[in-house]
Amino acid sequence: MKPSIPKGTRDFLPEQVIKRNYLFKVIKSVFENFAYVPIETPSFESLSTLTGKYGEEGDRLLFKILNNGDFLADSDEQVLKDKDSRKLLPSISKRGLRYDLTVPFARFVVMHENEISFPFKRYQIQPVWRADRPQKGRYQEFYQCDADAIGSDSLMYEAELICIYDQVFSKIKIPVEIRVNNRKILEEMIDSIGEKEKFVAITVIIDKLDKIGWQGVENELISAKINNEAIKSLKEYLDLEDISSLRDYFSERNINSYGLKEIEEVFSFLSKEKFINKVKFDPTLARGLNYYTGTIFEVKATDANMGSLGGGGRYAELTEVFDRKGMSGVGISFGAERIYDVMLEKGLFPEKLFDPVDVLFITLDERSHHAGFSLVSKLRNNNIRSDIYPAPGNMKKQMKYANAIRVPYAAIIGSNELENNILILKDMESGEQEEIMLTNFVIRFTEKLIG
Amino acid sequence: MKPSIPKGTRDFLPEQVIKRNYLFKVIKSVFENFAYVPIETPSFESLSTLTGKYGEEGDRLLFKILNNGDFLADSDEQVLKDKDSRKLLPSISKRGLRYDLTVPFARFVVMHENEISFPFKRYQIQPVWRADRPQKGRYQEFYQCDADAIGSDSLMYEAELICIYDQVFSKIKIPVEIRVNNRKILEEMIDSIGEKEKFVAITVIIDKLDKIGWQGVENELISAKINNEAIKSLKEYLDLEDISSLRDYFSERNINSYGLKEIEEVFSFLSKEKFINKVKFDPTLARGLNYYTGTIFEVKATDANMGSLGGGGRYAELTEVFDRKGMSGVGISFGAERIYDVMLEKGLFPEKLFDPVDVLFITLDERSHHAGFSLVSKLRNNNIRSDIYPAPGNMKKQMKYANAIRVPYAAIIGSNELENNILILKDMESGEQEEIMLTNFVIRFTEKLIG
Repeated sequence: MKPSIPKGTRDFLPEQVIKRNYLFKVIKSVFENFAYVPIETPSFESLSTLTGKYGEEGDRLLFKILNNGDFLADSDEQVLKDKDSRKLLPSISKRGLRYDLTVPFARFVVMHENEISFPFKRYQIQPVWRADRPQKGRYQEFYQCDADAIGSDSLMYEAELICIYDQVFSKIKIPVEIRVNNRKILEEMIDSIGEKEKFVAITVIIDKLDKIGWQGVENELISAKINNEAIKSLKEYLDLEDISSLRDYFSERNINSYGLKEIEEVFSFLSKEKFINKVKFDPTLARGLNYYTGTIFEVKATDANMGSLGGGGRYAELTEVFDRKGMSGVGISFGAERIYDVMLEKGLFPEKLFDPVDVLFITLDERSHHAGFSLVSKLRNNNIRSDIYPAPGNMKKQMKYANAIRVPYAAIIGSNELENNILILKDMESGEQEEIMLTNFVIRFTEKLIG
Repeated sequence: MKPSIPKGTRDFLPEQVIKRNYLFKVIKSVFENFAYVPIETPSFESLSTLTGKYGEEGDRLLFKILNNGDFLADSDEQVLKDKDSRKLLPSISKRGLRYDLTVPFARFVVMHENEISFPFKRYQIQPVWRADRPQKGRYQEFYQCDADAIGSDSLMYEAELICIYDQVFSKIKIPVEIRVNNRKILEEMIDSIGEKEKFVAITVIIDKLDKIGWQGVENELISAKINNEAIKSLKEYLDLEDISSLRDYFSERNINSYGLKEIEEVFSFLSKEKFINKVKFDPTLARGLNYYTGTIFEVKATDANMGSLGGGGRYAELTEVFDRKGMSGVGISFGAERIYDVMLEKGLFPEKLFDPVDVLFITLDERSHHAGFSLVSKLRNNNIRSDIYPAPGNMKKQMKYANAIRVPYAAIIGSNELENNILILKDMESGEQEEIMLTNFVIRFTEKLIG
């Protein structure tokens, strides 16, 4: 029986780990440029912390951890007899794997309120787990990379987060469009067409615009019993091209829009920025299923047919679910797994990123093998990444290994070389060979290998 | 209701994350010097991969994940009626959280045999989970840092791993003793005293020597019905001080010891090393509960009263549990959580490790706040980690925040400064202030802040 791993999970080979770490490092370095600081939270939380925070679907997709020991001891017999999984659950599981980084962050802020200074700007790069049906590009374990600023309602943070998106995507060379809207604008617009009570239904429909087009949206609005005039006004809204036309839209309807004021303020901070990527107001952006209350963001690649590469927004009351009011927060998330896929597809990782050894020692007999070990040890003590094949003698086998691990240089020693106090350094690409004196080989290697 | 986290888990505040990452980075850089490459495996594995690999105690301490959906659907009714947790388990859980990094590594090697070159030298720094009773210094989620070389039985790798221990502990400045023994030596010694069939019992007793002293060990040996002469010979063995006396011990008994040959070979590789830490043969080292077959290692701090800071050894058949024979492996592990505790206790982290912002902008009115945002943005684009307080005006509040986040410089702008095209840079430690022209402030800041 061949071993396997659970569906929806992945092993990462060295080259993949190194590429993934490169991406995380870029994101991390930008977060740090913007003065965000790292926190980490446990992989599992109490189910009372997680349950009810992600909707019914989310509760279903939480990975629950079975209580240890005799977990059935206190279970209700009738529930067992009924085979009622739902009712049994609370008695056999009290912990669940982290589903996202936002709820644990809110929990963290409430628990550590007295240990941190506000506004608190944190980033967090950790895996999360969701029991989604695995499919191409969708995993049950995946990384999230979040930055949030909490404890201030200043719209400067929205501007800052847009700059972060721009800086990260320009560093990794994926051209994107950073779309910005505000839930208040949507509310005011839907209010103005007289459909306030259908706000959620309408935003969910608008959210599908990218997928089903206006015709699809119109059909769904009709099914949702939105009247013709309202649909016309909604279409006009969705066609708005910039903030200036949004200003006209509300002004024609005599609406004093708070959402407009907010988005104007965000863009006023950005007036002098020279963005590498497109940053634009997008009236069609709704982020239907999220509980944002103000600004919302979404990032799409402009030349890759790929869903959203990131998103976020403001929660007026981020910690309210933990009974701590008055903590406004705004944050963004990077869809690291998708970004990684785009980078792979488009060959955006730097060349020679996977380059784990500078030199491999190849030895021709026992004595040179032992001598080689001491030489390698000296290199390692001087931070030159070096290795030595474990068995001397078979030159062909050792060279084959050198090629397999893609090492740029091989250092060859046999009894002749030892006698003459030298080694042969072979450039594996050009095939050129050079004799190097053992008396100063560390210096010579440093010059050659590290440059 | 205040939110909490599960017992045995921890939140990490920014300063802790940065310190932990510093430790991981040192370990990682040494692994890479020695040409080990990183892999990652999923947080959860199939229970069939994990169960039975860690003994009965280990099986009990595995965190099991409840199957999703209607998990009771296929459960046996009699088992439910009997409330038999053990028998119910296989029908409601098929996955468990990673318990260590060795079993997943063995599974990884078997699954990816055709994608990697042997000998394969991998490192892995990831959390593991054990449902141990939480207590001081013992957590249910903790990091392991492992390096293993697989696919070769060369004793050179033993020597290499000892060098890794020495390099890591000298870099983090914890003086340690790296103790080395060989299970074959123990086997041969126990065989020579005629107690072959009590090998496991005796090694478990020897393993307690540090804790209970010779008197305690002797009592336990007597209880285990080891005869007087055997105990005398065993005592003689445990008192051996070096390899040369071990050589005499076996030679006096006419034993051709394979274990002796192996440990001699390991030390012959190390004959030219200049270790910072003590490296010594330790006859009392047994690592009783591990399934090593050759060399065994253990690291102890020489001047901190702390258990083992690391350990490891050779498995002649690392992948045998997955039906792949002929793969010898040797590896070591760093007890990162304990090492972190020792470093904290002894103040071994570099000063100013937690220093997340170079400069904080403090602004006196709306206009300078917006101007300040653009200036900060320029700095961030030049990789100077900078921040700006989100609300202008209240100087005292802003200065208080600057002190709280421990920023070394504050940049102050009001309408006067804007008019004169300058800002005031204040050294937060000395209190000194300097006027800086906005025309070349990025260059000036780079000189001042990055040096």
